[in-house]
Amino acid sequence: MEAHLFDRAIALAPQGPGRWLGRTDPAYANMVGPYGGITAATALHAVWQHPERLGEPVSLTVNYCAALADGGFELQARPVRTNRSTQHWLIEITQGGETVLTATALTAVRRETWGSQDEPAPRVLSPNAIGRPNMAGLVEWVRRYDIRIVEGAIPRVWDGSGEHSRSTLWVRDEPPRALDFMSLAALCDVFFPRVWLRRATRVPAGTVSMTVYFHVGQAELAAVGDGWLLGQAQASVMRNGYFDQRGQLWSQAGALLATTHQVVYYKE
Amino acid sequence: MEAHLFDRAIALAPQGPGRWLGRTDPAYANMVGPYGGITAATALHAVWQHPERLGEPVSLTVNYCAALADGGFELQARPVRTNRSTQHWLIEITQGGETVLTATALTAVRRETWGSQDEPAPRVLSPNAIGRPNMAGLVEWVRRYDIRIVEGAIPRVWDGSGEHSRSTLWVRDEPPRALDFMSLAALCDVFFPRVWLRRATRVPAGTVSMTVYFHVGQAELAAVGDGWLLGQAQASVMRNGYFDQRGQLWSQAGALLATTHQVVYYKE
Repeated sequence: MEAHLFDRAIALAPQGPGRWLGRTDPAYANMVGPYGGITAATALHAVWQHPERLGEPVSLTVNYCAALADGGFELQARPVRTNRSTQHWLIEITQGGETVLTATALTAVRRETWGSQDEPAPRVLSPNAIGRPNMAGLVEWVRRYDIRIVEGAIPRVWDGSGEHSRSTLWVRDEPPRALDFMSLAALCDVFFPRVWLRRATRVPAGTVSMTVYFHVGQAELAAVGDGWLLGQAQASVMRNGYFDQRGQLWSQAGALLATTHQVVYYKE
Repeated sequence: MEAHLFDRAIALAPQGPGRWLGRTDPAYANMVGPYGGITAATALHAVWQHPERLGEPVSLTVNYCAALADGGFELQARPVRTNRSTQHWLIEITQGGETVLTATALTAVRRETWGSQDEPAPRVLSPNAIGRPNMAGLVEWVRRYDIRIVEGAIPRVWDGSGEHSRSTLWVRDEPPRALDFMSLAALCDVFFPRVWLRRATRVPAGTVSMTVYFHVGQAELAAVGDGWLLGQAQASVMRNGYFDQRGQLWSQAGALLATTHQVVYYKE
């Protein structure tokens, strides 16, 4: 069986303790360099396969310092602090000796506790009722997902008429692939720039920092399998070249799997 | 004139390029170690005074790897990537050679662009109408702020009766101090653990990672001066030992100054 393109894209070749070589994959190409979500997933992948890893991901912050050039890159991941049930990570991707990405992560052994989910999934039409994928494939990585936008699609006409920045959409890997922490991290970046929607104006925009909080463990991810996720994202404020985005990803059964935030550069 | 306690607490003694010595300040003591907000502010303070800094803070993520022991600590901050108008930072605090905090930050030269604030400040009673500070000073750092909770106070009775996790409050330094990036970062951590409110149960809880997005520049902060900020915070989900918190801080005039997120450990 051939590997899923996602697995090919996040693959890392070990180079010694905490060091790997990776390679950008044309299947996940963005306008310039690779899709930010696949780079985030690759950074987390190093932590995931590190022999000293304790527990499962709880948080991940990736900082996109510069666009990755197409081709090879070096990745380093190291546990900077290991406690009884938590572990803090520092990750760096370099190309030609220059830093192109920094990341920090927390992994932890989670225990059963009291719990409550207070952010229910919005009630929307099912993916089948939406019908076919409806996010235009302007760039290659979009073809790696089946995205069915319920609300807040990419404007068809760039006439400056936007009124809000909220999108709600169904999404899964295309072809389907069983969900794991890496693909969940990648999916957190699946929303197109909020400024396009808010302004109905297509300006250059790019994520500069993204944070993901994982709210479930491997068992719950396994239960989702290759099913649909429901995502929602919106901005609070756009000002002097930067806007924020907060997002949520639920399973089709309504479990909040991840919350995510990013700050995005935009021009003009 | 005596320095404000906040300035004393975030003071750093230069030790060479990108290296400083700091000291925990009893004025900002928390249950164990210092208030997380003051440590975040101290990390940002190193970036702020670094001679190579480009622009002003846009984002800051701090990871609390371990409780700081009372006393001295070493801080390193270095620009890992400097672009034309953006700069990425890596910050680390150590004690006795062990990592106790990691942080990343983005500073940038911001330009005037189109903008829109879509998250208005909630309409609430004024700080004077609320009257006196009403957040109980269980720990020393709380006395460094004037906090007037409008909604979602710390439960008076721990009877497990909680229904939501949202607090809305007025806050400013006590005594008043002109707002800057460091004090704004510190204020992002001012909300008591959401799990206390949601459960009306007092369980051990501590922030493990916090992110702050700054939406204004120094001129807008200067315009706020030592005025009141309105803050709101709530959780989405609490599960197996961790919950998220998202928060906003507005000026009294209604400008969204910062959005912030954290993931918090809780017991039981």
